[in-house]
Amino acid sequence: MKRIGLFLLVATSSVLLVACGNNKKVSNSGSDKTELTGNDSNNSYQSLIKDGNYQVSKSSGVNQNQTNNTFNLQGFQQDLQNISKKQFSPSKYVFQEGQYISTDKAYDWLGRKSSSNPDGLNPNQPEKKVVPEYLQQIEEQDYLQPESGTNKLKGMTIGIGLNSVYYYTKEKYGAQYSKKLNDEDIEKNGKEIADKILARMRKDKATKNIPIVIALYKAAPDDSLVGGNLFAYSVNNSGDSSVKSWSKIDQKTYVLPTSGDEKIPNGNDETAFTQFKDKTQNYFPTLSGITAKAKYTNGQLSGMTISVTTQFFSYTEINSFTQYLQSAAQKYLPTGAPVEIQVGSTSGMQSYLYRGKNDKKFNVHVFTNY
Amino acid sequence: MKRIGLFLLVATSSVLLVACGNNKKVSNSGSDKTELTGNDSNNSYQSLIKDGNYQVSKSSGVNQNQTNNTFNLQGFQQDLQNISKKQFSPSKYVFQEGQYISTDKAYDWLGRKSSSNPDGLNPNQPEKKVVPEYLQQIEEQDYLQPESGTNKLKGMTIGIGLNSVYYYTKEKYGAQYSKKLNDEDIEKNGKEIADKILARMRKDKATKNIPIVIALYKAAPDDSLVGGNLFAYSVNNSGDSSVKSWSKIDQKTYVLPTSGDEKIPNGNDETAFTQFKDKTQNYFPTLSGITAKAKYTNGQLSGMTISVTTQFFSYTEINSFTQYLQSAAQKYLPTGAPVEIQVGSTSGMQSYLYRGKNDKKFNVHVFTNY
Repeated sequence: MKRIGLFLLVATSSVLLVACGNNKKVSNSGSDKTELTGNDSNNSYQSLIKDGNYQVSKSSGVNQNQTNNTFNLQGFQQDLQNISKKQFSPSKYVFQEGQYISTDKAYDWLGRKSSSNPDGLNPNQPEKKVVPEYLQQIEEQDYLQPESGTNKLKGMTIGIGLNSVYYYTKEKYGAQYSKKLNDEDIEKNGKEIADKILARMRKDKATKNIPIVIALYKAAPDDSLVGGNLFAYSVNNSGDSSVKSWSKIDQKTYVLPTSGDEKIPNGNDETAFTQFKDKTQNYFPTLSGITAKAKYTNGQLSGMTISVTTQFFSYTEINSFTQYLQSAAQKYLPTGAPVEIQVGSTSGMQSYLYRGKNDKKFNVHVFTNY
Repeated sequence: MKRIGLFLLVATSSVLLVACGNNKKVSNSGSDKTELTGNDSNNSYQSLIKDGNYQVSKSSGVNQNQTNNTFNLQGFQQDLQNISKKQFSPSKYVFQEGQYISTDKAYDWLGRKSSSNPDGLNPNQPEKKVVPEYLQQIEEQDYLQPESGTNKLKGMTIGIGLNSVYYYTKEKYGAQYSKKLNDEDIEKNGKEIADKILARMRKDKATKNIPIVIALYKAAPDDSLVGGNLFAYSVNNSGDSSVKSWSKIDQKTYVLPTSGDEKIPNGNDETAFTQFKDKTQNYFPTLSGITAKAKYTNGQLSGMTISVTTQFFSYTEINSFTQYLQSAAQKYLPTGAPVEIQVGSTSGMQSYLYRGKNDKKFNVHVFTNY
């Protein structure tokens, strides 16, 4: 089911931009005037600027129509880039938004297979039967290297986003129903789709002989407070037209404090967060709330983002509070994973604190207002 | 005129907190269990935590009722603290929210003088005549030093916020009228009010023999996109009960791009900003807007905050864009003053960049979403 709503405007403008751009030049990755965005040296990619424009994705906007949960979109892209870094090191490769799967192609592939859409990667829909769509999103990321004075496509990562819940209506504009999909079926369908996509990419001259990483992502339900998670990936060498082997990824994001019987992989992290939360709320009783998202990879904490909602409007209060948070975070919160704390009121972000994976101390900033 | 609206809830809860607190202990700054918030070492004050609670201002919330322009409030407090740093060095003094001007006192002082309110610092209101109120806000900041095992009040800064426009109604709930006040009158009234407040503070034993810094602030009109500015301050030695001399402060904040005939003190800064803006919008045509606030002190740029509104939702786009901004900012924007760039969409802040006054490079952070 395609979702067309809030994001349509964005999608349209991006697509238009591509349409007004120079398709031919883009697809031959040839002799245009290219520049790079520059690198912030935090192990992130430089990106390509071509003919004075940032190259938006050829299918930009498509994915925004495919999910109602924005965490799915951003988390997916971020996780994919992290996977890519293992294969295509940011020190050697330059990033480019996907230029080889066009908007039309993406919509065809994401659709159901039918006589009018033979390329659809979702199953045919017989009358009066609920046949779930597994494929939700396709995300392409290009990795380039300089060669004879230009940047050439040397690697690609394709993310396949899969529904964990299938949403459908029994009639046009009718009530929405949902069907939870089971993990085995999600994995089976994801791997089949991966093979088909890989085979198709190999038919294109530009992508025939490059390594292509494919990763499978289980999207979160629309009402989830966190995004979904990658669960498998494969590195496919030049020319391989079906996936030879899959590597498992064990990754999940939790909301803290946990509710009900939910248990996070490392109970100590929740205790640490609770101490931080209680101590802070005790000292600053006018806080509205402190919640966190904790991401685990292979049972280890791989990231924590904390959101603190204040009722402060005073500069001095925000300032003092941020200082307090810094020492409390340093004292209580787990180390060895990036920790990000966003402090804000209803009128926006007031301050933020960040400690990278290998940093000793938090980097702190109180936003200015004058 | 007192404004009671949006912020009343906040004001009330803060006041309640004080009321439930331990007034006696607070006002004798005596032998309680005190802690400090810890210091982020960026030349900012540590703050006092007393009996396990952050000490909110005794008149917290009062100022929030006095202005409809939140920039006035935060800018005022931040500027005051900058003035205080000259007199009470953060390495030697600890900050405490004002504890000596209570909510009741503040409301009495901010009110008009009358038989029922002899302490009112705004003029009496005769029938059928428009007599402007000059006094809009009073902000107290306390500076403490350790002495015999406790932190004792050793200095104070009082900010006097003055209306630049007087807003009034001719009848209750009637239409709002406004009267622009002229700078000479604002200054004259501000200085008279300063003398009265100083004399009153000297009658209290706790504040009789400490240095008291008084600063005058001209608040911006309610519809201004920037806050007001400090225009004079005085350092009053222990015991002085009237201001002996005033120092001028030449400070103003401008919105960029400037509109109409407005000229900023240093035209090069506007050229630099325009180059940064044009170049960025050229490369990323889907941006919604780039605006800035530039603050000048004695004709020199003393701070710039830039707000960039995007239509991006994609992690990779935000990431690439932020990298681009970093190199463009480094290339075009003026040095020698702190520069803060906030990047956000309608759904909140997406990334931010900051270069401190003496920093060589921008500190960059893309916010996480998973």
